[in-house]
Amino acid sequence: MITCFVNKSKGFLSEGMSKKIIFKPYDLTIEVPEGENLLHAAMTAGIHINASCGGAGVCGKCRILLEEGSLECQPATVLTQEEWDLGYRQACQCTVTTDVVVRIPPESLLDKKTITRRRTGVSLRPAPIDVAALKEEGLYDPAFQKKYLELPPASLSDNICDLSRLETGLHRQHRLDNLTLDFLLVRKLAKVMRQEDFRVTATLDFAQRRSRNPRLVNIEPGDTTHKHFALAVDIGTTTVWAQLLDLAKGEIIGQAADYNGQMSYGDDVISRIIYSQKEGGLKTLQKAVVTTLNNVIRRLLKQHKLPVEEVSHLTLAGNTTMTHLFYGIDPKYIRLAPYTPTACHIPPVRARHLGLDLPEHVFIYAVSSVSSYVGGDIVAGVLASGIYKDPKLTLYIDIGTNGEIVIGNQEWLACAACSAGPAFEGGGIRFGMRASRGAVEEASINPDTAEPMFMTIGMAKPKGICGSGLINLLAALMETGIVLPNGKFRDDLDSPRIRRGPDGLEYVLAWGSETESGEDLTISEVDIENLMRAKGAMFAGYLTLLDSVGLKLQDIEQVILAGAFGNFINIENAIAIGLMPDLPRERFQFVGNGSLTGATLLAFSRELLEEERRVADMMTNFELSETPGFMDKYIAALFLPHTQEEYFPTVTERLRALRG
Amino acid sequence: MITCFVNKSKGFLSEGMSKKIIFKPYDLTIEVPEGENLLHAAMTAGIHINASCGGAGVCGKCRILLEEGSLECQPATVLTQEEWDLGYRQACQCTVTTDVVVRIPPESLLDKKTITRRRTGVSLRPAPIDVAALKEEGLYDPAFQKKYLELPPASLSDNICDLSRLETGLHRQHRLDNLTLDFLLVRKLAKVMRQEDFRVTATLDFAQRRSRNPRLVNIEPGDTTHKHFALAVDIGTTTVWAQLLDLAKGEIIGQAADYNGQMSYGDDVISRIIYSQKEGGLKTLQKAVVTTLNNVIRRLLKQHKLPVEEVSHLTLAGNTTMTHLFYGIDPKYIRLAPYTPTACHIPPVRARHLGLDLPEHVFIYAVSSVSSYVGGDIVAGVLASGIYKDPKLTLYIDIGTNGEIVIGNQEWLACAACSAGPAFEGGGIRFGMRASRGAVEEASINPDTAEPMFMTIGMAKPKGICGSGLINLLAALMETGIVLPNGKFRDDLDSPRIRRGPDGLEYVLAWGSETESGEDLTISEVDIENLMRAKGAMFAGYLTLLDSVGLKLQDIEQVILAGAFGNFINIENAIAIGLMPDLPRERFQFVGNGSLTGATLLAFSRELLEEERRVADMMTNFELSETPGFMDKYIAALFLPHTQEEYFPTVTERLRALRG
Repeated sequence: MITCFVNKSKGFLSEGMSKKIIFKPYDLTIEVPEGENLLHAAMTAGIHINASCGGAGVCGKCRILLEEGSLECQPATVLTQEEWDLGYRQACQCTVTTDVVVRIPPESLLDKKTITRRRTGVSLRPAPIDVAALKEEGLYDPAFQKKYLELPPASLSDNICDLSRLETGLHRQHRLDNLTLDFLLVRKLAKVMRQEDFRVTATLDFAQRRSRNPRLVNIEPGDTTHKHFALAVDIGTTTVWAQLLDLAKGEIIGQAADYNGQMSYGDDVISRIIYSQKEGGLKTLQKAVVTTLNNVIRRLLKQHKLPVEEVSHLTLAGNTTMTHLFYGIDPKYIRLAPYTPTACHIPPVRARHLGLDLPEHVFIYAVSSVSSYVGGDIVAGVLASGIYKDPKLTLYIDIGTNGEIVIGNQEWLACAACSAGPAFEGGGIRFGMRASRGAVEEASINPDTAEPMFMTIGMAKPKGICGSGLINLLAALMETGIVLPNGKFRDDLDSPRIRRGPDGLEYVLAWGSETESGEDLTISEVDIENLMRAKGAMFAGYLTLLDSVGLKLQDIEQVILAGAFGNFINIENAIAIGLMPDLPRERFQFVGNGSLTGATLLAFSRELLEEERRVADMMTNFELSETPGFMDKYIAALFLPHTQEEYFPTVTERLRALRG
Repeated sequence: MITCFVNKSKGFLSEGMSKKIIFKPYDLTIEVPEGENLLHAAMTAGIHINASCGGAGVCGKCRILLEEGSLECQPATVLTQEEWDLGYRQACQCTVTTDVVVRIPPESLLDKKTITRRRTGVSLRPAPIDVAALKEEGLYDPAFQKKYLELPPASLSDNICDLSRLETGLHRQHRLDNLTLDFLLVRKLAKVMRQEDFRVTATLDFAQRRSRNPRLVNIEPGDTTHKHFALAVDIGTTTVWAQLLDLAKGEIIGQAADYNGQMSYGDDVISRIIYSQKEGGLKTLQKAVVTTLNNVIRRLLKQHKLPVEEVSHLTLAGNTTMTHLFYGIDPKYIRLAPYTPTACHIPPVRARHLGLDLPEHVFIYAVSSVSSYVGGDIVAGVLASGIYKDPKLTLYIDIGTNGEIVIGNQEWLACAACSAGPAFEGGGIRFGMRASRGAVEEASINPDTAEPMFMTIGMAKPKGICGSGLINLLAALMETGIVLPNGKFRDDLDSPRIRRGPDGLEYVLAWGSETESGEDLTISEVDIENLMRAKGAMFAGYLTLLDSVGLKLQDIEQVILAGAFGNFINIENAIAIGLMPDLPRERFQFVGNGSLTGATLLAFSRELLEEERRVADMMTNFELSETPGFMDKYIAALFLPHTQEEYFPTVTERLRALRG
C-alpha cells in the first residue's frame, strides 16, 4: 500500500557513500555521507568546537588537526602556511571525501566539555517526490494528456466543420467522446488544423470535477506530445514558490521562488485582510501577488529555455487568505467571527483572467481549503503525504506563518489552526529571518563556557536565525541550563555572552565583528517568550484534537512535518523544547514545503486532482479557541519542554542525566 | 402530439370578430376581421380600385361611397366637404367596424374589370409563439430557473464557507446537487449572502450540455424569483433582432431590431467574409455587430424599464457566417472549397467576453449550425416549427438573404442552401427594400388599363418594394399578361406605365408625384430576371432534395415558410410565380422570423436547449452545386411559373381561365 507520495526513506541523512571520521583524542567514530562538511560532522557527533562565524571561515576558531586521510579544503585565510603544513585545517572549510582521523587540538580542549553529551538525534531533510515510485505504482497519470491525431483533410464529400472533424478523430483514434470545449480554442482551430495538413496534437484535461467528460484544453499543429509542461505553485504568505514540471517525462525540471509582493502591505494574513478592506486594497494585493508569480514563472521558464505556450495548466495551493486574495475574493469574513471563508473550493479559472502572463488556454486549479485558517496548503500537504489513505494514525504538522495540524487516518481527519504566530518563520523574533543565506541553522553551546558553535545556510557570515536555527539554539540554551524551564535566563552566569539588552536578558550568539551587519546577533527573553507561545499553542493543539476523538499522544503512529524549516530539522531539539511530541524518533518524517509538493503531485496524478475536494471535505475543522480545555492546555505548555514532565519522558531523562 | 411550437391556427387571417362588407354594384359580400382596412378588404375580395400612393391618402384615387353602416375614417384631405357629405370616402383611410355596404363609384367603374377575377388566395401571417399552449403541454420549462433559499446564518458552531452553505441549502431545500460553478460569482457571494441575512435567490442553468449538473448562474439578495428575464437574439446578415423575455411569467415582453452594423462592410455573407480577411477586418466586423446588439438591447431594456442585472442569459441564432463573425471566429474557410466552417456548435461564452454590455453572469447560448450555408438560424426554425419530431413529411423554406431549405420529418432531415441571392429581401432589385414603412407590400394590376392598386407598410407614401410586395407584383404582372412566362415585358401594350428605362423595359408602379423620394417607382426586366433566378434556385433545391430521397413534391404534407416577408405572405402569388410548390394551400404555414422564434423557444424550453445540437447533427447537408441534376432543374425553373406546367397544375388552370 502506498501511503505517502513523497519518498520517506530518503528523508533521513543516509544516502550516498558513507565515510568514517575518527575524532581524537576521544576515539569517537562516526559515519557521515561523502561530501559532508567537517564542522557539521563534529556537531552531529556531539563534539563542540567553538565556531562563531557560521562556517564563513573568518573566525578561525574551528581549527582541527588532520592526522590521517585527506580532506577537500577551501584555501584557509586565517591559517599561516606553517599551521597548514602542520595539518591544521578550519573544520568549516573542509569536506569529507575519504575516511579520516582528525584531532581536536589542545587549545580547543581547554574548553571543557568539548563532548557535550547531547544526543543530537535525527536530522530530517525534506523528502523529495519519488516520481519513479509513482510511476511504478501506476500513480503517475497526469490529468492533462496530449493526444496526437492524423485527421483526414476536408473535401467536398466530407466538409464537416473543423471542430467536428477533431471530435471525430478523437473518437476514432483515441476513443474519446463528449468533449467539453473552451470557446477561445475554437477561434484558432481552423488555422492550427491546416498548419500541418490536419495533423494536430490535442491537450485534454481528464479531471473536470464531477464530470466524466474530457475538456479540450489546447490544440497544436503537428506532433507535440513530447513537449508538455505544467506549473505547480505555492502561494505562501511570505514566499511564492513555483515548480516547472515536464509531464511528458514525469520530471520536476526546476523551481524558483520570490517573496510575496504583498509583504509590503503586512507580514501576516491578518494585516493583509485589514489592508484589503481599504479602498482599492483588494485589487492592490491581488495584483501584488500576481506580479510576484509572473516574475517567478518568467524566470523559471527563461532559465529552462521553455516557451510559455508549452505550459498546459497550473496547479496551486495556498492558505485560505492567500487563495482568496490571489483570486480577488474579498477575505473580510475570514477575520471576523464566526470566521467564514467565502469559498473553500474554487472552480478552474483562466489564468489570464487573473492577470497572469500565461497563454489563454491555461487554467488554474487550486487545492480546496477546509476553513478560514486551514487552507489549501494544508490539504495539499495531506494529499502529498497520503494520510487520507493511510490506515496509520498520523499527526501532520505544518509550521509556517501559522501553525496548522491535522490528525487522522484513512477513516477520518480532524484539523485545526493554532494561532502560533510566525515565530518559527522568524517573525516576532528580533534577529529572526527566513531560511536563506546567512541564517543560523544549526547551533550548539559549550555548557561550561557558554561559547557557541553554529553554522549558517550557505556558510556565510551570520545575518539572523531561521526557524530550525531557533529550535536548535533554544534547545541548546535550555539543555546547557543557560535558559531555565520557564524561559528566563539564569542571571548568575559569568559569561560576556549573557547580558542585559533592550528586551531584558539576552544571549550573544555572534559578535558584531563576525556578523554580516556588524551588529551583535542575539536572542532575548522576549524572543524566547514568543517561541514558547508558538510551540505551546501547537502542543495544546495536538492534545485538544486528540482529546476530541478520545486518543492520546502515544496512539500517534507517524508524525509528518511540513513547513519553512530551512533544509533540515533536528527532531531531537524540536522535541526538547516541547514543539513536537516526545514519540519514537523513527515515527517522524519531514516533507518540507507540503503545499508545493501537493500542488506538484496534483499535476502528476489525476487521482489526486480528482480527490482533492473529497479530502478537504473529509477534514473536520476545530476552532481551538472555541474548544473547551484548549486554554488550560496552552497555559500548561508555556514551559520548557512542558509543565507536565510525563509528556516528555526522554527529554526529562536526558536533562537529568546532563545535570545529574 | 405537439409538432409545432408556434401557433399554427393563428397563422391565418381568421382571428377577431368578423364584419360583413357588401361591395356594390357587384353585390359581392366578404367577411373581414373587425378593424380591417377597407382598401385591403377590396384587394382581398379581388376588387380592383386604382390606388397608387400605397394607402397614404394622397392620391385620392381609391374613393368609394358608403351606403349603409359606418366606417372609422381619417379626415380626408383630398375630398371636399360636399363629397364627404355625399358619402364619399377614401378606402385606404377607412377601418371596418360594423357591417357595411359600399359602392364602387361610377368613375372607378369606367376602368373595366374592376373585379380582377384573380383568386387572391390565402394570406399567411407569422404565427406567434403560443406560450399558453406550451405551458399546457408541459413544454414551458426554461432551462434557467430561480430558486429562493433561506439559509441558516453562519455561527461559530457552523462556520462552513459561504459557498458550501449555499450548496447545502440548495441540496436541503431544492434537492439540487453537484453544482457547476462560475468563479466570478464567488467574488460577490459573501456580500450578497449577508445583504438580506442569508436569504438569497440562486439562478440555475439546468441545460449544461451533456452534463446533468446544474450550473450556478447568479445569486441575488432576498427573493427575486418573480424577476427573471432573458434575451433571445437573431443575428441576421441585414438585421439584428432581439426579444425580451419574462421567464417568471412566460411572456415575450417586447422586441427591437436594428440594421446589422456590418452592413457598412458588405451586403451579403460573401462580402463580409472577404472583408474579414483584411487586416483587422474580423475585429471590425465583430465589433460592429456587437455594437448593434448592444444598442438594440439597451433600447429594449430602457423601453421596458428593466435593469440589465435581471437578465440571466441570452440565446442566439444566426447563419454560420454571422455566428462566426459574432464570436470573432475567422470565417475564411466558409467561402473556400470545400466550404468548411470552423465550428458548427460553440460552447456557452460569457457575454462580456465578446464585448456585450451585459452583467458578468450572462452567458450566450448559440444554436448550432449544420454547414457553411445552413446555419443556426435554420436549425432554430426547425426547432421552432417542431419538424424534427413531426411524423409528417415537411418542407421548411427560409427565404432571407439566402434561401435555405429543409425536407424531412422525425426520422430524417435533409437540408441545403440555394444561392438564391437576396432578391426577396430587396437585394439586387433597383427599388427593392426591406419590409419597413413605405414598402409596397400588396399589389394588384388592372389587366385592361395596367393601372395599379397597392398598399405600403404603414400606409405611407411608397419608397420601394419589399419581398412580399415583389412576389405580389410579379404575380400580378404575370397574371395580367404584362410580363410573359419568360420574364420579359410585352412590348405591344399601350400604357404609359410600361416604358423603356435604363435596365430595358420597366413598369411604373408609382409616379414620382406619389412617392416619398419624388422619383418614379419601377420594376424592370433586370429586376424580374433576378427574382426568377432566386425563385428558380429555390424550386430546383426542393426537387433536388426530394430526388435524393426518392420522393416527389406531392409527398410533402406540410410547408413551413420562414423569412423576411414583411407582415404577410400571399401564398397564392408565391405559387403563381413558381417560388413555392403548387400544393394544397392549407398545407402552408408561415412562421415569420424562424431564427428569432427558435432563439426565444430555447429560452422557454429546456428540452429544446438540450436538443438543439442533436437536431443540427440530424440534418444531412447537401451541397447543391455538387449534386447531380441540380443545374438542369435550375435552368428548367427560370420561367413563370416553370417550363414544366405539370408542376403547377392550379396555376396553369387559372392562367388559362383568365386568358381563355
